[in-house]
Amino acid sequence: MRFSSLIKALQQGQAGLKHCDQAGDPELRGAASLEQADHDQLSFLEQGNVLTAALEQSAVGAVLLPDQDDLIAMASRRGLAYAVLADPRLAFAEALELLHPRLRPLAGIHPTAVIDDRAVVASGVSVGPRVCIGAGSQIGTDSVLHPGVVIYDDVLVGEGCEVHANAVLHPGTRLGRGCVVHSTAVVGSEGFGFVPTASGWRKMPQTGLVVLEDGVEVGCGSTIDRPSVGETRIGAGTKIDNLVQVGHGVTTGRGCALASQVGIAGGASLGHGVILAGQVGVANRSVIGDRAIASSKSGIHGEVGAGEVVSGYPAIPNRLWLRCSAAFSKLPEISKTLRELKRKTPQ
Amino acid sequence: MRFSSLIKALQQGQAGLKHCDQAGDPELRGAASLEQADHDQLSFLEQGNVLTAALEQSAVGAVLLPDQDDLIAMASRRGLAYAVLADPRLAFAEALELLHPRLRPLAGIHPTAVIDDRAVVASGVSVGPRVCIGAGSQIGTDSVLHPGVVIYDDVLVGEGCEVHANAVLHPGTRLGRGCVVHSTAVVGSEGFGFVPTASGWRKMPQTGLVVLEDGVEVGCGSTIDRPSVGETRIGAGTKIDNLVQVGHGVTTGRGCALASQVGIAGGASLGHGVILAGQVGVANRSVIGDRAIASSKSGIHGEVGAGEVVSGYPAIPNRLWLRCSAAFSKLPEISKTLRELKRKTPQ
Amino acid sequence: MRFSSLIKALQQGQAGLKHCDQAGDPELRGAASLEQADHDQLSFLEQGNVLTAALEQSAVGAVLLPDQDDLIAMASRRGLAYAVLADPRLAFAEALELLHPRLRPLAGIHPTAVIDDRAVVASGVSVGPRVCIGAGSQIGTDSVLHPGVVIYDDVLVGEGCEVHANAVLHPGTRLGRGCVVHSTAVVGSEGFGFVPTASGWRKMPQTGLVVLEDGVEVGCGSTIDRPSVGETRIGAGTKIDNLVQVGHGVTTGRGCALASQVGIAGGASLGHGVILAGQVGVANRSVIGDRAIASSKSGIHGEVGAGEVVSGYPAIPNRLWLRCSAAFSKLPEISKTLRELKRKTPQ
Repeated sequence: MRFSSLIKALQQGQAGLKHCDQAGDPELRGAASLEQADHDQLSFLEQGNVLTAALEQSAVGAVLLPDQDDLIAMASRRGLAYAVLADPRLAFAEALELLHPRLRPLAGIHPTAVIDDRAVVASGVSVGPRVCIGAGSQIGTDSVLHPGVVIYDDVLVGEGCEVHANAVLHPGTRLGRGCVVHSTAVVGSEGFGFVPTASGWRKMPQTGLVVLEDGVEVGCGSTIDRPSVGETRIGAGTKIDNLVQVGHGVTTGRGCALASQVGIAGGASLGHGVILAGQVGVANRSVIGDRAIASSKSGIHGEVGAGEVVSGYPAIPNRLWLRCSAAFSKLPEISKTLRELKRKTPQ
Repeated sequence: MRFSSLIKALQQGQAGLKHCDQAGDPELRGAASLEQADHDQLSFLEQGNVLTAALEQSAVGAVLLPDQDDLIAMASRRGLAYAVLADPRLAFAEALELLHPRLRPLAGIHPTAVIDDRAVVASGVSVGPRVCIGAGSQIGTDSVLHPGVVIYDDVLVGEGCEVHANAVLHPGTRLGRGCVVHSTAVVGSEGFGFVPTASGWRKMPQTGLVVLEDGVEVGCGSTIDRPSVGETRIGAGTKIDNLVQVGHGVTTGRGCALASQVGIAGGASLGHGVILAGQVGVANRSVIGDRAIASSKSGIHGEVGAGEVVSGYPAIPNRLWLRCSAAFSKLPEISKTLRELKRKTPQ
Repeated sequence: MRFSSLIKALQQGQAGLKHCDQAGDPELRGAASLEQADHDQLSFLEQGNVLTAALEQSAVGAVLLPDQDDLIAMASRRGLAYAVLADPRLAFAEALELLHPRLRPLAGIHPTAVIDDRAVVASGVSVGPRVCIGAGSQIGTDSVLHPGVVIYDDVLVGEGCEVHANAVLHPGTRLGRGCVVHSTAVVGSEGFGFVPTASGWRKMPQTGLVVLEDGVEVGCGSTIDRPSVGETRIGAGTKIDNLVQVGHGVTTGRGCALASQVGIAGGASLGHGVILAGQVGVANRSVIGDRAIASSKSGIHGEVGAGEVVSGYPAIPNRLWLRCSAAFSKLPEISKTLRELKRKTPQ
């Protein structure tokens, strides 16, 4: 597409277009980072971006910029087409959607799908090859089920959802509107609940629901368990990366982000906008306040207050942890100094 | 079901019914936690349960109680139907099975299943849509294979097993009686064995067996590898949560519990009743004694004695680790005090 | 096979056969560790192997040995068939391939496979039951697609690849020659990229490629994401274990080894021959030099130099970390000593 067409689209978007210079109105065929972009590709820069210096040399055709004089001057001097935006990253997201429109599979039910007579598939749904849908399950309008998806009995999928290849939805799963479940994820599986008895572990039946509110996204291979009673609930707009475990009875607020390989044990509760970085663990029944952040690999027990940033295991305030970690690497020195002092101190 | 019917069933059960008060013999339609239960729902309390206070206000219809006078008195005063049991949690498990009977798929082979002529499927087996069974594999009486399960050649599945959707069993897998393999789990995959050579990593063929003894349960997305020679063996009644890795040649005793995201490297050996909490790692050839417990995120090298409770990485006794962790968060202070002392101490 | 036939094959192999004693030229039917081997089984020993003592008692039929006089003397004294090799482990790998030849599925397309008219499947390919192949995708000569594999549109699979059951390849995936993707792995899934907006997380489209160079192996359940622009690239001969996460835009050199449950965040870059042990985490945009090694559970931020061995979180040089960890377990003692010194030191 021409840069001028992109500008028209960005005017309708949410990224706050301020002004632009269309230069030669280049034809754009894709996008790339500034270092790798060619003359028919689009790039973007944010304030403080490490690639700023690359603007001087880049073969890029057009660039989305923050409102920063030096960058604008450089783009201008080089004769590049550019646009200045309040949020150039968001503009780049909007542009990528235009440059690489997603091909939605056609509506319709593939003849190899196996759909129970008591399932209800709304209009506009695309049911791919080898999909199975069990009794009593309902698939909302315009949803897409990719090949190999298995939907057990008693599952509700809202409007406009997308379930990727070989994902599995178990009984009691409830998807709101516009949810995305990525390939091989499993939602609604039995929680890990066992009662110790004289003859070994006895399964506690897991009969509750898993509710994904509107706009929730679940990464590849992630697993979200159903509880024995009550609900596991993921708040609207929460995004879950690959290989994340969400235990039975966990609840999260809206707009959380859980990075890859996070594990949340049964009954934990997260507020709104909580961010857990990669490989974080959250213990049973922990309570994490709104907008709290846990850095990678931290392990949370008990409570984390709203807005807190924690690190380490057991998790402590991030700033303290940074100082403690620095001191940790000086422990041999500390031990040595202590031994010397002890020697010098009269007993 | 009526509370009185439930009581009759519990008398046959293992939870040690002591006495009960049927009050109005409420009709029960489900179960919930005390805080959320309604008049047609069942709840339970254990000794020391955090929800004890909820009994006073709960709208619950009936409750399973431990033999604790204050709780019994309160239930009685409120006119609730209640039963007193030696193990109210176990009773609740038994009750949930009655209130939510699992619907077993009908026996029979779905026409879309692809079964090799040289496979043997016993009577009473349910083979779901799109299941594949390879040459020489055998499926025991009354087992259930859910949709999309792939069973390679040379796999033995015992009686009464359940294999959930899109799970995969590789050659050399041996399931005892009553095993459960949850959705997308993979058993019998090739162990991660490579020999370094001048031209790169060369695969060490993995030709051994993976044996799951009776009553083993493998969580969603978990992977259990086969070894180059010999066996990987999971002891009877061991329960494995989601996204757990069990390396080639690992052996566990009976009744272990491995929580989510645990990783056990090749050749490690666990005794009976070992409990590994979430995200624990166990190094190659480690040896863990009977009934040892590792708390979450700990990393085990070498040996852990029977009955030990360990934490941290490298794992140390839990009590020591708690004190060390507390001291860790005081490291900046410790450093400062040490500097001051040094200044004050004559050189 | 006869031991003498094995010797002939090893002469053609790469393990450096030095000499051998065929003794009674035993018939070999398999292989086992020295402790478990029977008279019709093969074993091997390496220099320093913990099982050396087992040679004295083993019922083994034949053994592959390093060039070590005491072992050769013992094998000779016991009348065992043995061969002496520069690399007995490599010889054992070669022998296992002969003793347990892998049965390759027959070439051909199973009638239940669903292949788009615009896909291209080369000659000699085996397409198993229930495989799906999307538009524009190409499968190279002699590749094997096991049951339930889903290949989306626009995927290229090179010659001689093997994709195991229920694995999923997304658009933009490029497999070189001789790659192996294990069961339920997902390659080319959308990277976890979202832009924060006033109305919540907005998806950054992930339109780049995932390139697996020749001979790459991806473990069960592992996930490799595609980036918004550019490439995720895994260097030739790199081996990835089960349940590993490789984020969008990650690049690795040749011959790396990533153990189970490793997580590599977006944009990180690994050199050649890097080894990451189990549960290691690598933060966004970290840079790891050639042949660096990270021990299990370490967490890497920033840079690791070529050849460095690091441990802990944040990762520090392994030798330092070992000393710090030892001191960590003495922290309560250190605190106590410090308090005493303070008391004794004049203020």
